[in-house]
Amino acid sequence: MSKELVFGHQSPDTDAIVAAKAFSYLQNQLGFDTEAVALGEPNAETNYVLNHFGEPAPRVIKTAANEVKEVMLVDHNEAQQSVSDLSDVTVTHVVDHHRIANFQTAQPLWYTARPVGCTSTILTRMFADNKIDIPAQLAGLMLSAIVSDTLLLKSPTTTDEDREALRALAQIADIDVDSYGLDMLKAGTDLASKSDLDLVDGDAKSFDLGGKKVRIGQVNTVDLDDVFSRQAGLEEAMTNENSGNGYDLFLLLATNILDSNSELLVVGDPKNVVETAFGKKLDAQNRMSLPGVVSRKKQVVPPLTSAFE
Amino acid sequence: MSKELVFGHQSPDTDAIVAAKAFSYLQNQLGFDTEAVALGEPNAETNYVLNHFGEPAPRVIKTAANEVKEVMLVDHNEAQQSVSDLSDVTVTHVVDHHRIANFQTAQPLWYTARPVGCTSTILTRMFADNKIDIPAQLAGLMLSAIVSDTLLLKSPTTTDEDREALRALAQIADIDVDSYGLDMLKAGTDLASKSDLDLVDGDAKSFDLGGKKVRIGQVNTVDLDDVFSRQAGLEEAMTNENSGNGYDLFLLLATNILDSNSELLVVGDPKNVVETAFGKKLDAQNRMSLPGVVSRKKQVVPPLTSAFE
Repeated sequence: MSKELVFGHQSPDTDAIVAAKAFSYLQNQLGFDTEAVALGEPNAETNYVLNHFGEPAPRVIKTAANEVKEVMLVDHNEAQQSVSDLSDVTVTHVVDHHRIANFQTAQPLWYTARPVGCTSTILTRMFADNKIDIPAQLAGLMLSAIVSDTLLLKSPTTTDEDREALRALAQIADIDVDSYGLDMLKAGTDLASKSDLDLVDGDAKSFDLGGKKVRIGQVNTVDLDDVFSRQAGLEEAMTNENSGNGYDLFLLLATNILDSNSELLVVGDPKNVVETAFGKKLDAQNRMSLPGVVSRKKQVVPPLTSAFE
Repeated sequence: MSKELVFGHQSPDTDAIVAAKAFSYLQNQLGFDTEAVALGEPNAETNYVLNHFGEPAPRVIKTAANEVKEVMLVDHNEAQQSVSDLSDVTVTHVVDHHRIANFQTAQPLWYTARPVGCTSTILTRMFADNKIDIPAQLAGLMLSAIVSDTLLLKSPTTTDEDREALRALAQIADIDVDSYGLDMLKAGTDLASKSDLDLVDGDAKSFDLGGKKVRIGQVNTVDLDDVFSRQAGLEEAMTNENSGNGYDLFLLLATNILDSNSELLVVGDPKNVVETAFGKKLDAQNRMSLPGVVSRKKQVVPPLTSAFE
């Protein structure tokens, strides 16, 4: 069996980094030869997590085919979110909690998707099904990913499986989730140190919707004013990204993690489809408030997908 | 939770019928409200299996959206192999052992694919993981599906998981697999009673390969002469199917289940791609012998896919 690389999506968040490490560890225990890598540097939140548990960041790769013939994907499946030369390697395994789209294989493969809040929740169950113990530090990373993806279980993407997994992992890692989790989320919201480009694109993902290239970024904060006091710079960065990468539309979702409300900023066209998606008009500053919206996957992409169809 | 339909692919084989019944049973035990249905009548082999274990055939449906909003797919995922109005319903679950292609969802879903010989093998493991007993008749159906898909474990698609599942199911069903299995396979090869159209299209699947619509049928036999003594009629049926359904190319794989060799018959164009795929020329009768080839999925579709690219 030749070596395989395991990685999450571009612009990695905590789950993308952690799920790669966890799935690689599990697969190696099961007899595979894998290395967890990443498609970008860890963000501030993920660095806080890795430092807290004394775990190294995965090596960053730009391409895969120069190293291996086969890869395993975690926390994504859409080709445009994956490694640039995905079509030159064979995907043998996927563990994911997103919709399936723009994904195709020539051969049967191992694919596990579950409609839960976090890839690390699925992996927690896989360790149990395979009767393999989760080391304490890895449990700490995995519970951090669940805190991150579900905003401390407050996101509507949260399921009973996420709550169960978080409880089990907290016990293994011996962590007080509530106090650790809030510190961790706040560590990810130090926006002052970030450039406008980092802020709009640091966590962004691309989607093909109704023939349009749509880029959707999300930034967590404890004060929306920290984001929109910089709106002119953000809009310029989004405009540049659109023209530089051929995106038609750039959406930035700024989410207040304390009260679970978001404000959406839109640059590009067609803007009216965004208005249709959410049933309200953009204001004169191309913004709309979205109370209760915290999940790009569950509360932004589906209405947009429908509106584009 | 509203009712969902569970079904396998069009032109159902034993696994498509059985996996729908087995997954529906499992999901109902887990609290879902499902009904196993089928996208066509059972073939001769499947009827033998259902009669042997005293189980009814699933109800045949033409469309799903007139009955339900949500469906679960087994033993397939490609839209062109599924119910005709698939785009009008939401796929919530998939259990499959094929490649993923031409499949897309707007929402996260539950998807389990494993690169094994039979969907019923995957389901056998799921029952165990969920600590749910398999009733004896259902175990008999499921082992029949494994015998059918792996040709009594002789197909190159066979994995250790298939062997293990077959052993476990035989014990539950209290069946001598070798003698029962051969009787069952032979029951599926009574070709004399079948029309030319049944024979070429009864088990056929459609594939989009390099922009061409390719139809691939397979017929099992204990004597290839039983098939090719009727070649003129078969070619006529394939030609009619091509023009009636817009297929570019129709391949019929006739497989001798006793010695695991096949003969391929080709109608339509481009024939040279087929020759490239298998590295040999078609003879004057548009046939080529493929010794050791018994698996459409593993030994026919992949080389064709490569040749079309």
